Amino acid sequence: MTNEASMGLPSFRQIQTLIKDQTEVEIKVLTNDLLVGKVRWQDDQCLCLLDHYDQPTIIWKQAMVFLKPKP
Amino acid sequence: MTNEASMGLPSFRQIQTLIKDQTEVEIKVLTNDLLVGKVRWQDDQCLCLLDHYDQPTIIWKQAMVFLKPKP
Amino acid sequence: MTNEASMGLPSFRQIQTLIKDQTEVEIKVLTNDLLVGKVRWQDDQCLCLLDHYDQPTIIWKQAMVFLKPKP
Amino acid sequence: MTNEASMGLPSFRQIQTLIKDQTEVEIKVLTNDLLVGKVRWQDDQCLCLLDHYDQPTIIWKQAMVFLKPKP
Amino acid sequence: MTNEASMGLPSFRQIQTLIKDQTEVEIKVLTNDLLVGKVRWQDDQCLCLLDHYDQPTIIWKQAMVFLKPKP
Amino acid sequence: MTNEASMGLPSFRQIQTLIKDQTEVEIKVLTNDLLVGKVRWQDDQCLCLLDHYDQPTIIWKQAMVFLKPKP
Repeated sequence: MTNEASMGLPSFRQIQTLIKDQTEVEIKVLTNDLLVGKVRWQDDQCLCLLDHYDQPTIIWKQAMVFLKPKP
Repeated sequence: MTNEASMGLPSFRQIQTLIKDQTEVEIKVLTNDLLVGKVRWQDDQCLCLLDHYDQPTIIWKQAMVFLKPKP
Repeated sequence: MTNEASMGLPSFRQIQTLIKDQTEVEIKVLTNDLLVGKVRWQDDQCLCLLDHYDQPTIIWKQAMVFLKPKP
Repeated sequence: MTNEASMGLPSFRQIQTLIKDQTEVEIKVLTNDLLVGKVRWQDDQCLCLLDHYDQPTIIWKQAMVFLKPKP
Repeated sequence: MTNEASMGLPSFRQIQTLIKDQTEVEIKVLTNDLLVGKVRWQDDQCLCLLDHYDQPTIIWKQAMVFLKPKP
Repeated sequence: MTNEASMGLPSFRQIQTLIKDQTEVEIKVLTNDLLVGKVRWQDDQCLCLLDHYDQPTIIWKQAMVFLKPKP
């Protein structure tokens, strides 16, 4: 289970809102890829992004640089 | 042994499903390599990927960026 | 919640001042991007940067290299 | 000493087997170097690789991406 | 506050000396930038570097590769 | 102080030997620099390398990839 300390963080809660609102986001990772889609779930280590074809990608939070709503 | 906290995470369980279902996956690592194969086992630090020739590669989770079922 | 140990650090307090003073900053991240904007909030893992259009970007502190007031 | 939790991991045990069997391996590290040799020992933080001239190289596990038996 | 374990480390104490002596240093970070200036303060996570114009830059220790007195 | 767990590791002890024997070493870091010199001291987070001119460089262990005696 996701530990309580993380769940109390503003960053965790902001991602929960993006999940609830099904907001499309861009995620920049350390390999310079910009991944686009909707966040399905998150835990302490990863989050799951659904692309346009509803295909799931598990992204490791350790490799994440920034995340923002798609303009 | 893999610690219980990790085993409860959705990301850990999702990989267990991929192991059980023998799903072919793509794993992007920090060196920008895209490794393809079937996940044989995972623990807190690594997972083992079998390629087409059933050759095992131990991949460090710390170097993993994203993982997805091969389209 | 952000843990108390972090909140006592000079680096955390200096960013709190930048938030309070609405100072425009430059943030260099590991992908060599230089992100510009005003810090809205921070927690142990991330901070939120508002760009010129007030669009929020969540940046992972693990990927941050340096931060400085925009000259 | 190497802590017990690590020693119980499949990844640690698999490397112990490679040490015992003197298997030649390839190790990809974050700088994209592919290091070849036989693993002499490992601990929580590093492993020692002997090259063709039996020269030891200490490799930090934090910088390891993947390891596989040399085809 | 900076935790006591870190403050006891030779590396932490060596940087305190550089702060006290106002020594000009070069800091190589993971993005390959070489930052030059005088260290003003350090904590567990960051240090603050003043450049020639006394402008402060907060550098994350996690992104630091090496530090040396400017030749 | 360097914590006891680290001091018991083979990797830590091997570096202590290199310090005692004043062996010249090559250290590859994540920015792909290859730093050459003699290790003067080490702690949990860093080690200090003296170059040909006896100039000290503090290297963060987090950025180290491999270390080997100079051939």
